Amino acid sequence: MRVGLDVGGTKTDAVAVDDATGEVVVRVRRPTRVGPEGVVRTIVDTVHDLAGELGVAVASFASVGVGLPGQVDDRGERVAHAVNLGLERLEVASVVASVLGTPVRVENDVKAAALGAYAIERLDRSMAYLNLGTGVAAGIVVDGDLWRGARGAAGEVGHVSIDPRGPACRCGQRGCIEALVGGGAIAERWGRAAVLPVRDVFDAADAGDPRAVELRDGLARGVAAAVRLLVLTCDVDTVVLGGGLTALRERLTVPVQAALDEGTAASGFLRSLDVPARLRLLPPASPAPAFGAALVGAAATRKAMTHG
Amino acid sequence: MRVGLDVGGTKTDAVAVDDATGEVVVRVRRPTRVGPEGVVRTIVDTVHDLAGELGVAVASFASVGVGLPGQVDDRGERVAHAVNLGLERLEVASVVASVLGTPVRVENDVKAAALGAYAIERLDRSMAYLNLGTGVAAGIVVDGDLWRGARGAAGEVGHVSIDPRGPACRCGQRGCIEALVGGGAIAERWGRAAVLPVRDVFDAADAGDPRAVELRDGLARGVAAAVRLLVLTCDVDTVVLGGGLTALRERLTVPVQAALDEGTAASGFLRSLDVPARLRLLPPASPAPAFGAALVGAAATRKAMTHG
Repeated sequence: MRVGLDVGGTKTDAVAVDDATGEVVVRVRRPTRVGPEGVVRTIVDTVHDLAGELGVAVASFASVGVGLPGQVDDRGERVAHAVNLGLERLEVASVVASVLGTPVRVENDVKAAALGAYAIERLDRSMAYLNLGTGVAAGIVVDGDLWRGARGAAGEVGHVSIDPRGPACRCGQRGCIEALVGGGAIAERWGRAAVLPVRDVFDAADAGDPRAVELRDGLARGVAAAVRLLVLTCDVDTVVLGGGLTALRERLTVPVQAALDEGTAASGFLRSLDVPARLRLLPPASPAPAFGAALVGAAATRKAMTHG
Repeated sequence: MRVGLDVGGTKTDAVAVDDATGEVVVRVRRPTRVGPEGVVRTIVDTVHDLAGELGVAVASFASVGVGLPGQVDDRGERVAHAVNLGLERLEVASVVASVLGTPVRVENDVKAAALGAYAIERLDRSMAYLNLGTGVAAGIVVDGDLWRGARGAAGEVGHVSIDPRGPACRCGQRGCIEALVGGGAIAERWGRAAVLPVRDVFDAADAGDPRAVELRDGLARGVAAAVRLLVLTCDVDTVVLGGGLTALRERLTVPVQAALDEGTAASGFLRSLDVPARLRLLPPASPAPAFGAALVGAAATRKAMTHG
């Protein structure tokens, strides 16, 4: 049995995957505690939850993989700049492994989710997983392996500027895709208190609020640009949309599709790339991020075995 | 000895490469004849020029590789939509092979040039070769192999829009990088008769012509955006600039560098990617495109040998 955890800023989603069948046998969620001790405690407690649900010992788990919203080194040991978790830098793998007594490997949450989406959607060749959440970034998988690039920045489409007169982005540029699409940026620009700011914006847009309509149009334009961008640079076979915003389902995909069609209507070249046909939406509450984390953990033990 | 040809819209550049040393032993140039018969004749005559220079028989060449400005199938046999060569569709490889009696393989000119730049610059890991010519496109090489993507569209950064209010692009969109950077687009927008329109624009900009300054600024902004884009999506280790516009040397790189610095000054995130440090300029009149074509031809024979 292999364990995978997706540690989000507010909640942690975890699965135990059967080695033989590759199926999810049990899944648990618990709120995330932030800060170094809080995050370690959250991971440890969640793994114990899974063991309890299964009635097995934690030590019986072959591996534990953890997806975290931050920069992770390519050896899968350390996380840095995990702002939403209140972590500046933490040796997550070694600390958690010493407590649980199992091999542990960590990965950036979007990259882990990309591996999970690729496996769960049974894809082959190349795929980009575009995460639409508080932030916006993509994870690129080619022939089953993550493509990290020179410095792990591959897929950072959120900070590509598509409009020099666009809204200011927290990264310092103007008109970044994340400034138009990111849940955090939308909430800031909307400025109205709401549990789900983007949903609040979409509701207000449906009610005809002009500023909400403008924000929704910008969001759709930004998502369409990100998808087009991933095709024009990496020419991936499939672009899978995931992340919190996808809970909006058709309310998100219909305007995005319209924005894509607008581009292809204008351009025979874009039409020839058949971008809309490459697009998929991850099902609501998909276990892909946690499942991908379990795959990351499995890679850790394979590595441990092959490299002694 | 292996032969490589870069067939451009006006001239064809060719090299013969020594198998053992990998060095260019002879290089010739001749004007390109357009149309199906003209292109075949140009390739055949140029290969004979090389044989003549070397005092050897054409049949003694191990392979002939040809880079062409058009869509080439991934088996390296056929070219389509080679507008600048007056070719709608041509079985170049088989036709030329039947005349020369040597194995022939064709490749898109930018992709062939990318392979050549990667080899000549002695690069490793990942590189994007950004061609700045009449059109704008990149060729991506990872661990020595071309990355074509799902439909050979990988690296088509020329048609990423970076400004919804930007100039109209021949592809039908607005604000495409090619509309800001491409020699064809610049010439059209400049509208003044000149042998080298972009150089004419730069001269006029130096003389203070406001429209020329605007065009030059847009060009620099577009090149900087393309370089940034290749790092933010593919995170390539190196971006090599090549193509006709690079003949402007510092007159091109200084404003491009300024545009890149502008972005990094605003964004700590961009600064952390160290984009300017990944940038290289191909030397003037580099044999990279023809050399890359020779590598394409070599791949053809390797394939012929391994697959019978």
